[in-house]
Formats: sequence, structure tokens, C-alpha cells
Amino acid sequence: MNLPKSLQNLINLFQQLPGIGPKTAARLVFYLWQTPDHYVEKFSQGLVDLKEKTKQCSTCYNLDDQNPCTVCSDSNRDQTQICVVERPLDIIALEKVGDYIGLYHVLGGVINPVDHIGPDELHIAPLLKRLKNGQFKELILATNPTMEGEATANYLARKIKELTANSSKLKVIKVTRLGQGLPTGADLDYADAWTLKQAWQNRRQVVN
Amino acid sequence: MNLPKSLQNLINLFQQLPGIGPKTAARLVFYLWQTPDHYVEKFSQGLVDLKEKTKQCSTCYNLDDQNPCTVCSDSNRDQTQICVVERPLDIIALEKVGDYIGLYHVLGGVINPVDHIGPDELHIAPLLKRLKNGQFKELILATNPTMEGEATANYLARKIKELTANSSKLKVIKVTRLGQGLPTGADLDYADAWTLKQAWQNRRQVVN
Repeated sequence: MNLPKSLQNLINLFQQLPGIGPKTAARLVFYLWQTPDHYVEKFSQGLVDLKEKTKQCSTCYNLDDQNPCTVCSDSNRDQTQICVVERPLDIIALEKVGDYIGLYHVLGGVINPVDHIGPDELHIAPLLKRLKNGQFKELILATNPTMEGEATANYLARKIKELTANSSKLKVIKVTRLGQGLPTGADLDYADAWTLKQAWQNRRQVVN
Repeated sequence: MNLPKSLQNLINLFQQLPGIGPKTAARLVFYLWQTPDHYVEKFSQGLVDLKEKTKQCSTCYNLDDQNPCTVCSDSNRDQTQICVVERPLDIIALEKVGDYIGLYHVLGGVINPVDHIGPDELHIAPLLKRLKNGQFKELILATNPTMEGEATANYLARKIKELTANSSKLKVIKVTRLGQGLPTGADLDYADAWTLKQAWQNRRQVVN
């Protein structure tokens, strides 16, 4: 016995999403079938709108309703700081903290030779171009603390050093990386050796 | 900073699906944004098709491309057995085993007072109507072995007993329930007390 085509087709599509296996896909589709028509219609329209209405900022590559995006077009933000992230979702996470009021640059991923993603597949050239105008005093490398994220951060740090060394009119940019150590609520017993090593190296004095 | 409307809207819709939280919803939507246009278009169309092309069988309430469904319209299947399940997905699971060649009846859920689902919200009346023509010799209660599934099975067993007692023309129907015990690959040490109790009661002789 085969599933009806309309169901099987949607199950196949759901299965292509990350983290959704065949069982979950089937559950979601059967669930959708019994939801009210207007919800499924909204869903269908939402997908069309996602592609049609979401714009990618041509300056920082963030996603927004407008281009240039809300951050890039906000003159109240600190125009001397730029934070480099992997994905637009990372911006949301950092904006939730609310401490940072500078600009962003989305790389669109990380250097990953296994997946054939080199520097040219990322928005690195536009980043270097942005740096050349000399407006930035600090660049924060906020790629994830994974092997690929570290490699990408190191690559960028090297490229920026080259850039500042070769250009006399370019001011010296302070390049920083997000601090590493134990996350809030962690248990030393469960922390991996690398995290513990970083936490140890980055220990800070609490009593003078 | 708010997310662009087109993204937030789709994230909200994804979040209404079972088992999908705000983080997963955001991840899925950002993933969808970067997939090729034709995939998202297919997805959008798939949702429309789900509602327009999937039909509910007016006899057994299974979902199919046609009404009556493939099972109900297949005269090669055993017309004397009927298996009562909660959801169309349960039929798929049983058909994969392939041992059963009788008919089905989908209840559309289980009796669950907490969610205000009584017998009238399920396809119980049409089931009793189907039984009245006297074609069935066995009815298999294949609701899940959960508290609600058991309660629904008990309710149906009682209803069928009333039906056969009051109708002289109706033959006696054998009502069965799926066997309970340890699932394949289980570990006695991890089995819950109730499963172990059932396995104990349903033990079978292996050497005569």
C-alpha cells in the first residue's frame, strides 16, 4: 500500500529540511491535513512571501524587509564597529543581548573544505572592501567557536593584517574574537577539555 | 531589532507544528530562505495540494487519492475482518508489516476528557453502523496502548457487546486487542513495571 501522492510529495519535501526525518515528516503532514484550511493557506503563502519579500542587504548581507537593512540604514548605530557573523540568525542572537550597537557583516557560512566552501563562496571580498574606507576602529570576529569557525576567523585575521600592512591610508583596526570559557550554568565535571583549557587561560582576577 | 515580517510570519507558522519550538522554526525558515526558489515553490504548492487533492474515505476515514480509498475498494482484501486504529498513520505502520489483509476504520483520535474529546468527536457512530450489516467476524482494536487508547478500546468493546446483544440478526463478532509485552530489542532492566507485568501475564510456552 502506498501513501496518496499528495501526502507522499509533501512528506518528501519536509524530509529535505534539516533535522526532519521520515517519521517526523509524516507526522507533520498528517497533522497539517487536519488543521483548518486557512492555516495551510497561510503557510503556503508564507513560503511564497519568504522568497518574494525577504531582501538581502547588499552591504552587510543580513536579511530584512528592506535593502539596505534596518541596521545599515540606522545612523544612530556606532559606525566604527563591525561584527562578522556566519549567519543572519547570529545577528538576532547578539541583538537580543542588546549591548552591541555597531554594524554587522554576514559571511553566509564558514570555510569548510569538506563541503567545498572556500573564501570565494563567502562574503569575504565585500567585507574587505568595506574595511578599506577606514571607518572602522574595531572588528569583532563572532564566528562560532567550532573548528571551521576558528579557521575562518584565523583566515580573516590574516587577511585584515595584510590589508592594513599594505595600505598606508588605512587606520589600524583592532581585531577581536568573542571570549571563550565556561557557559553560564555549566558543570566543570561535564565540560570538555578544550573548553576547560580556554576557561583556565582566560581566568580573570576577582580580588585586587 | 525585529525580524523582517516575511521571516517572522513563517517562523510563527512553523512554531504551531507539533514538536517544533521557536529555535527550530527559525532555523528551518532561514534554511528555506537559502534553498533554491523551485524547492520553496514546490513546498508552497504541496501544501495547497495536500488540502485539495487528499481525500478522506467516507467509509473508513483513511486518507487517500480516491474515495472510497484503495483498501475499501479492493475486493481481494478480507471483508470479514476490521481493524480499528486512531490515525491514518497507524494504517501505514500495519500495512508495512503486511500480514493483515482485512479492512480498517480510522477513529480520528481517542477519547480524551482533558482535551474535550468524547465518543461523538470520533468516527465511532459510523463504525457501529458498519458493524450492523453483519459482514465482520473479527474486530481488532488497534488503538495505542496508552491510557486514552485503552479507555477508547474498552468503550468500543462495551458498545459492540451492547450492539450484538440487542440485535438478533447480527452474528457474534470476535473482538480482539493487539498483544502487549516487551518490544523487540528491549532490555528487562529498562522496561517499565506495567510492560513487564503484561509480558509476564502474556508469557507463552516454548517447549511442550
